[in-house]
Amino acid sequence: MSLIPTSAVAEHASRDSCWIIVHSKVYDVTEFLDEHPGGSKIILKYAGGDATEAYEPIHPPNAILDNLPIEKHIGAIDPNTVVKVVKQVTEADKRRQALMDARPPLDEILNLHDFEAVAKVVLPEKAWAYYSSASDDEITIRENRAAFQRVWFRPRILRDVSSVDWSTTILGCKSSLPVYISATALGKLGHPDGELNLTRAAAKHGVIQMIPTLASCSFDEIVDAASPGQPLFLQLYVNRDREITKKYVQHAEKRGVKALFITVDAPQLGRREKDMRMKSVDDSAGAKVQENQSGVKKDQGVSRAISSFIDPSLSWKDIPWFRSITNMHIILKGVSTPEDAILAYEAGCQGIVLSNHGGRQLDTSRSGLENLVDIVAALKQRGPWPNPNFSVFVDGGVRRASDVIKALALGASAVGIGRGFLYAFSSYGQEGVERAIEILRDEFEMNMRLIGARTISEIVPDMVDASALHSHVGITPSDNLYNGTYQPLGTAQFRQAKL
Amino acid sequence: MSLIPTSAVAEHASRDSCWIIVHSKVYDVTEFLDEHPGGSKIILKYAGGDATEAYEPIHPPNAILDNLPIEKHIGAIDPNTVVKVVKQVTEADKRRQALMDARPPLDEILNLHDFEAVAKVVLPEKAWAYYSSASDDEITIRENRAAFQRVWFRPRILRDVSSVDWSTTILGCKSSLPVYISATALGKLGHPDGELNLTRAAAKHGVIQMIPTLASCSFDEIVDAASPGQPLFLQLYVNRDREITKKYVQHAEKRGVKALFITVDAPQLGRREKDMRMKSVDDSAGAKVQENQSGVKKDQGVSRAISSFIDPSLSWKDIPWFRSITNMHIILKGVSTPEDAILAYEAGCQGIVLSNHGGRQLDTSRSGLENLVDIVAALKQRGPWPNPNFSVFVDGGVRRASDVIKALALGASAVGIGRGFLYAFSSYGQEGVERAIEILRDEFEMNMRLIGARTISEIVPDMVDASALHSHVGITPSDNLYNGTYQPLGTAQFRQAKL
Amino acid sequence: MSLIPTSAVAEHASRDSCWIIVHSKVYDVTEFLDEHPGGSKIILKYAGGDATEAYEPIHPPNAILDNLPIEKHIGAIDPNTVVKVVKQVTEADKRRQALMDARPPLDEILNLHDFEAVAKVVLPEKAWAYYSSASDDEITIRENRAAFQRVWFRPRILRDVSSVDWSTTILGCKSSLPVYISATALGKLGHPDGELNLTRAAAKHGVIQMIPTLASCSFDEIVDAASPGQPLFLQLYVNRDREITKKYVQHAEKRGVKALFITVDAPQLGRREKDMRMKSVDDSAGAKVQENQSGVKKDQGVSRAISSFIDPSLSWKDIPWFRSITNMHIILKGVSTPEDAILAYEAGCQGIVLSNHGGRQLDTSRSGLENLVDIVAALKQRGPWPNPNFSVFVDGGVRRASDVIKALALGASAVGIGRGFLYAFSSYGQEGVERAIEILRDEFEMNMRLIGARTISEIVPDMVDASALHSHVGITPSDNLYNGTYQPLGTAQFRQAKL
Amino acid sequence: MSLIPTSAVAEHASRDSCWIIVHSKVYDVTEFLDEHPGGSKIILKYAGGDATEAYEPIHPPNAILDNLPIEKHIGAIDPNTVVKVVKQVTEADKRRQALMDARPPLDEILNLHDFEAVAKVVLPEKAWAYYSSASDDEITIRENRAAFQRVWFRPRILRDVSSVDWSTTILGCKSSLPVYISATALGKLGHPDGELNLTRAAAKHGVIQMIPTLASCSFDEIVDAASPGQPLFLQLYVNRDREITKKYVQHAEKRGVKALFITVDAPQLGRREKDMRMKSVDDSAGAKVQENQSGVKKDQGVSRAISSFIDPSLSWKDIPWFRSITNMHIILKGVSTPEDAILAYEAGCQGIVLSNHGGRQLDTSRSGLENLVDIVAALKQRGPWPNPNFSVFVDGGVRRASDVIKALALGASAVGIGRGFLYAFSSYGQEGVERAIEILRDEFEMNMRLIGARTISEIVPDMVDASALHSHVGITPSDNLYNGTYQPLGTAQFRQAKL
Repeated sequence: MSLIPTSAVAEHASRDSCWIIVHSKVYDVTEFLDEHPGGSKIILKYAGGDATEAYEPIHPPNAILDNLPIEKHIGAIDPNTVVKVVKQVTEADKRRQALMDARPPLDEILNLHDFEAVAKVVLPEKAWAYYSSASDDEITIRENRAAFQRVWFRPRILRDVSSVDWSTTILGCKSSLPVYISATALGKLGHPDGELNLTRAAAKHGVIQMIPTLASCSFDEIVDAASPGQPLFLQLYVNRDREITKKYVQHAEKRGVKALFITVDAPQLGRREKDMRMKSVDDSAGAKVQENQSGVKKDQGVSRAISSFIDPSLSWKDIPWFRSITNMHIILKGVSTPEDAILAYEAGCQGIVLSNHGGRQLDTSRSGLENLVDIVAALKQRGPWPNPNFSVFVDGGVRRASDVIKALALGASAVGIGRGFLYAFSSYGQEGVERAIEILRDEFEMNMRLIGARTISEIVPDMVDASALHSHVGITPSDNLYNGTYQPLGTAQFRQAKL
Repeated sequence: MSLIPTSAVAEHASRDSCWIIVHSKVYDVTEFLDEHPGGSKIILKYAGGDATEAYEPIHPPNAILDNLPIEKHIGAIDPNTVVKVVKQVTEADKRRQALMDARPPLDEILNLHDFEAVAKVVLPEKAWAYYSSASDDEITIRENRAAFQRVWFRPRILRDVSSVDWSTTILGCKSSLPVYISATALGKLGHPDGELNLTRAAAKHGVIQMIPTLASCSFDEIVDAASPGQPLFLQLYVNRDREITKKYVQHAEKRGVKALFITVDAPQLGRREKDMRMKSVDDSAGAKVQENQSGVKKDQGVSRAISSFIDPSLSWKDIPWFRSITNMHIILKGVSTPEDAILAYEAGCQGIVLSNHGGRQLDTSRSGLENLVDIVAALKQRGPWPNPNFSVFVDGGVRRASDVIKALALGASAVGIGRGFLYAFSSYGQEGVERAIEILRDEFEMNMRLIGARTISEIVPDMVDASALHSHVGITPSDNLYNGTYQPLGTAQFRQAKL
Repeated sequence: MSLIPTSAVAEHASRDSCWIIVHSKVYDVTEFLDEHPGGSKIILKYAGGDATEAYEPIHPPNAILDNLPIEKHIGAIDPNTVVKVVKQVTEADKRRQALMDARPPLDEILNLHDFEAVAKVVLPEKAWAYYSSASDDEITIRENRAAFQRVWFRPRILRDVSSVDWSTTILGCKSSLPVYISATALGKLGHPDGELNLTRAAAKHGVIQMIPTLASCSFDEIVDAASPGQPLFLQLYVNRDREITKKYVQHAEKRGVKALFITVDAPQLGRREKDMRMKSVDDSAGAKVQENQSGVKKDQGVSRAISSFIDPSLSWKDIPWFRSITNMHIILKGVSTPEDAILAYEAGCQGIVLSNHGGRQLDTSRSGLENLVDIVAALKQRGPWPNPNFSVFVDGGVRRASDVIKALALGASAVGIGRGFLYAFSSYGQEGVERAIEILRDEFEMNMRLIGARTISEIVPDMVDASALHSHVGITPSDNLYNGTYQPLGTAQFRQAKL
Repeated sequence: MSLIPTSAVAEHASRDSCWIIVHSKVYDVTEFLDEHPGGSKIILKYAGGDATEAYEPIHPPNAILDNLPIEKHIGAIDPNTVVKVVKQVTEADKRRQALMDARPPLDEILNLHDFEAVAKVVLPEKAWAYYSSASDDEITIRENRAAFQRVWFRPRILRDVSSVDWSTTILGCKSSLPVYISATALGKLGHPDGELNLTRAAAKHGVIQMIPTLASCSFDEIVDAASPGQPLFLQLYVNRDREITKKYVQHAEKRGVKALFITVDAPQLGRREKDMRMKSVDDSAGAKVQENQSGVKKDQGVSRAISSFIDPSLSWKDIPWFRSITNMHIILKGVSTPEDAILAYEAGCQGIVLSNHGGRQLDTSRSGLENLVDIVAALKQRGPWPNPNFSVFVDGGVRRASDVIKALALGASAVGIGRGFLYAFSSYGQEGVERAIEILRDEFEMNMRLIGARTISEIVPDMVDASALHSHVGITPSDNLYNGTYQPLGTAQFRQAKL
């Protein structure tokens, strides 16, 4: 393959002939322009030039290779023709660096909310929008959090809790916490090391990481970063091309992954308006209102850029096929109803995750925690319970060890935390993740003592009052006239102080 | 008929003799002054002059002809005597134009709320007050929205949703969406083309428009703007003079209208204080407090200007008469109770709309969505269900395709959207309406996939949890002393950043 | 009785010998100082001088005569010695007058809330504090309002509502509204004509006024202001001295009062902190913190100034005595439980008012509307229902005709409005009260049409959904960390407009 | 023991050899550094110098003696070598003094909230953080308050309430109120006289004080300050070394303490982030972000400084031992479930306190008031009720006499108030506590009259409606797009006033 000079690439800088450079390789994307899930506009911005910087944090490493026919792989760029661009430090870069310098010291981070508050400030706006957004009115994402606060504790007293132990076994793997790191996409948007931050912290603290299909780091990079014997799970978006999926799954098994979490709640990615909005503002600031030109589709945020990798035809019929290609545990991630929980059980899966995808898919779906109650009841009726061969996990809205304990009391085997760890490394890298695990550990110690449970198995249904869990009620809209006129009471007033 | 010079009109500029010009015709309205639903004051403002500009957006085109005896139609104005007035561009006009220029580009409009937010800014205050207002404390209008958020999804997974189809048939007419454009009055307040924006967009996208009795455009203008075979419905306020109504209904049928939606929740128009308030401020800004002068009635906003066209004596006895004058489907719009739903069914109607008139009539009425549950239960007991000869529609508070899907799951045949489309053309004309339809289409595609329904008929009751729908509870008033003293928790604090 | 020169009064200006002038009469109040319910401090402020201005709005006209032994009535002041004081117009007076001039014109007052909003601005602070305050945390006063919003309408359609009639009969007296004017004390704090504003407006509009024991105007002044045959009720605080009460009741009956409403919820007046607070601020603004001096009691607001007129020993044993001294209807005002409602019925009363004294007595008492449901159920079980000899009234929190209709649907005979009318005359005098009645009339017309009731008797239980009335629930305290970090969604953004 | 010069102490100012002076005694704390519950950093700050000022308000007086082996007690400081340091008056001191001078006069303090509002302003930040903080999200602390507002009164009327009596007997001791002063730690943080303020005020007003294990004053100082025969209770944290506990308990009994309240809800102190946060800000203001250095643990607020005195192994097995060492009543403080209430009863205890430690331990625990209903029901089933040998107390969130009455109606014998009195003396010393008692007395008088109860025994279950107590429900997260666009109604507008 001969080397291509940058000047040759620069000649293909139009919609009619569009070449781009990614990681020193040249690709002809002219025919791909209209198929690009993220829209053609963003590609055309780099037409005839190097798109690596924009490409990298948003795409799985091999995305372009997988999606572009081999004949469009033009060749390698001639390094001698590449002018080393001194990267401009923008005002935004400087501002972000100043904020990074002003972060609270890590030992002032007291809970998982703190990471989120820091990340909100130091993340590039686009990354914050992608990570924090959820679908439609973002009701489900908030309900996920709120649901935990409708479960109340019934703590037991006078048990000798000198030593408490919150370690457990998840799908046959030892875990120092009843918590696993759930898959979240595109970690490099938040930190240059991306998902490796999680892998390294997980190794150090005996926690299990679920590797996302849409990681910014490649699967192998992540596995390579793991320590010997470190248990890993894999989250799977099923590709329209089943051969790609098969190869991917079997490769994962070969590399030692213990369980396969097939995402079943995303036949199409949700509309995440915060993410879409951010993109719009970015592109068109200061622009004049334009009449909508048919045929030109706007870019629609990061979410849409990754959705074509997902097959909407995935169905129950595919489960036996998965069973046939792998011996890993098969877990369905994104179950919401007792009906589907029973179907999963009958299909021979080893478990389910009660999840609504962090509120990013179907808005006004109920929370995993709420569904847990109904689903555990249904599984109890259907078969043995607890069932060592069928695990029920929950994710969504978890911020505290006390949340986890509530889920365990209601029947969950373990709980997934996604954004919590994502924000931890986005704000403080690997050390942030380690601090997050430490905080959870401190919280587990305290809460297990205070609830009167010495081991995970002593966390029982009687320790919670979940009677309010199903009552997500609505309030009569307020009487603004009355409330506007009513003068609230105040407390006693100080005199003018001589300060 | 001889032509009348403007100077002759100008001589009749008092309460004792009051002539006005509307659309180049001269009318003697002296005796009509006290009957004018909008009050005499607004007419007297134009006494002896041309009232067209004020008349036009508020009145149905033929209002003056229908309401003034023929002998008061003085004649046509002599065009040679008319001084062409160069319309002054006011500061308010300039301001509004500047805001129009600054509107968000249409492709940044991501949901139906966005149209409302834009309309709120760019609409003349009077139009916004008329469109957005509802009755009394505006509790029902907000409850309409809130009710949808008390219904939660129970999404099904692993169904092959490669292709999903949300088209349907409404009263025998094809519709590309399970949504119709519900009637709203006085479209020209929002856009010079008024209701025609809807007609044209509906034609283009296969959606059904319900023509309002109180349109700013005449009935025939709207029908003329429709494309061949485009299905149209008609909303009817029943006039005190049944002959006028008969003529109107039979004309509509002749012109191809498919169904007649008789409004039954408005024997009198509601008190819409936001609208009334706007009028007051308008008239009396800067005025000194005046003792109330008996006999002089203030103008009471746009709503009152149109209420005399409605007959409060309309009753069940009239239904057979309607049946006798038309073969169109007859639908009662504004049903709230199972009792009345059964009466409508027994009276031989083809359907009902569960509606509280967008919260504009009886405040603290329950929402259509809430009533749907009880009414479907009653209809099931009474006859076959679903019943191809009796449709149940819902309107009020709909902003998302997910709202529509909830209503369909609970038994509705289709859902009406009024203000959503009204704000769409008020802010962006016909293109706004088209964009609104596109947005709904995108949302239907996503939501049907995510809920696991491939067609409208696969949307079933099990897909929603409506257990909270009836719980519009009240909250203990807050303890202001406690809340005022309690210091909320905050997150970790940044150091002073060097920005 | 010889005339006393002002100089002679001035000699008694100390705690040891304290004379004051009220309405040109001289009184020796030395021994009364410590008994004064409002504290001695306020009297000492006027020692040796004229206290009329401070006395008048707060005391019933004959309070000083009734409470001071005859030998302490020194005599009449010598008018020749009185220096006509030119009343200083203070900054506060000027400010208040400027605000009065700027009031919204009366025809812009659209509902009863508006009067309250105006009164809040134009009333002297002390008057506002006294009128608007309620006990403890003011939870019940707000709950009174909130309760109405937990009752929802089930409107009926297609009834001929051309003419609707909301007049009724209350305890045998005709009333143009199903509403009476409930007693509120000290009307002159709000307007120089005090309660007469109500009497005159009631005469003009056929409404019944309940005269308060603690009126600023004397009982006879009020009755004298009534038109011939105008029905009046009397609210009674029972005095420790039953002879005073007997004289008062029999005088009222002689003067034609139709019904006696005995207040039973106030054996002691509630602590109304807003009122107490106002007094404190008034007295001690700018003062230095003083150690509490035992023995010196602070004034405690207007409420406390009137409480000694009320006998805490009043009990069921007194009811037969009342029956023995009068033939007027006897109604117990302030009933909250079915148990007491039955006792009242069995004691031969003609009715009860379900009231919590406008939230001014026992805080966190339930609302009259909520109690209505339980009490009507109990009365139904006990005897005939509806019972022409036993009426159930409700008051508290009523602001709209729709509130009244809800109470009637649930079984009330009529509804009392206190503060609504009080604020009406405080802001606009008699015309305010008339406007308030007009507004209610307009609201009754609209609401009865919209609910489908042509007469009061057609307002039936099926027209309301009161299922949420008993659910005054509490909400989980919010997760401030989560809510503080969560970034709410916004709508599309405008570009910078050229304004 | 020879005297040690300050210069000799100053030589031991490092981690390798660390001496400090406390109350003129010298201690070698080198080996204790890592065991110090409050962290080593705070000790090292005073290494080689006098730590008394920092030590005093935070530690029980004999803490250092009890925890440091005798061989580390180096000796007494040579007073001749001590340089009298003129205490610097800092800006913060001056500011606090100015605020103290500007406090509202005590007679303007109308309720217990007022004390809290004043304390919030005048307390040193660290003290406020320690006193006001609660665990995790501080949900339970607020729920404690909110629970009372979910219980509503059903007041009875027409009972002769001329005289009402709210005195009672608590565990055999007379009390002028059905309230006792609950234990709170470290009173000297708020006032130099610490817990003695409570002792003296309790003596004067016939109220019972519960002495805290972690008082700033020593146990004997408090008992010495009591008047003859003044009843006292003792709150107990059980030490890991049972001999210390035994000595302490038996000493208390000897000195006349009547009842022992063993804290059972604190095997480990809760994480109180407000307190931890305060510490962080204090230490590191202006510091640069540092990478976390492993091995160095940050100080974690006042709470952690006292936690090692508590034994997490305390269990039911210890109860017989307590019974064997004392004849005092034994009460378990911190019971939350009927199961444990029954166990306490069967273990021969004389009572329980339904408490969640003021929200400072397990967050999202239910309130004592809510648990009261279930626990009383369980006790009724188990044995005689009311049971003179087994009392049920409640604490948490009490601010008003009406709260107490609600708890009594639901079955409590008396109610504990902790923070209310703590804030009273923090803001006004002993007089504050007396004022607090007076306020409660006034509130009891009013409320008992208004509810119709003349004695404590007449407060019966029928007087409250607790049906909402268990409903701590969650609300659907709000639709921010809708709410942001909805324009709330306002009242009529004033014209521009000429002020």
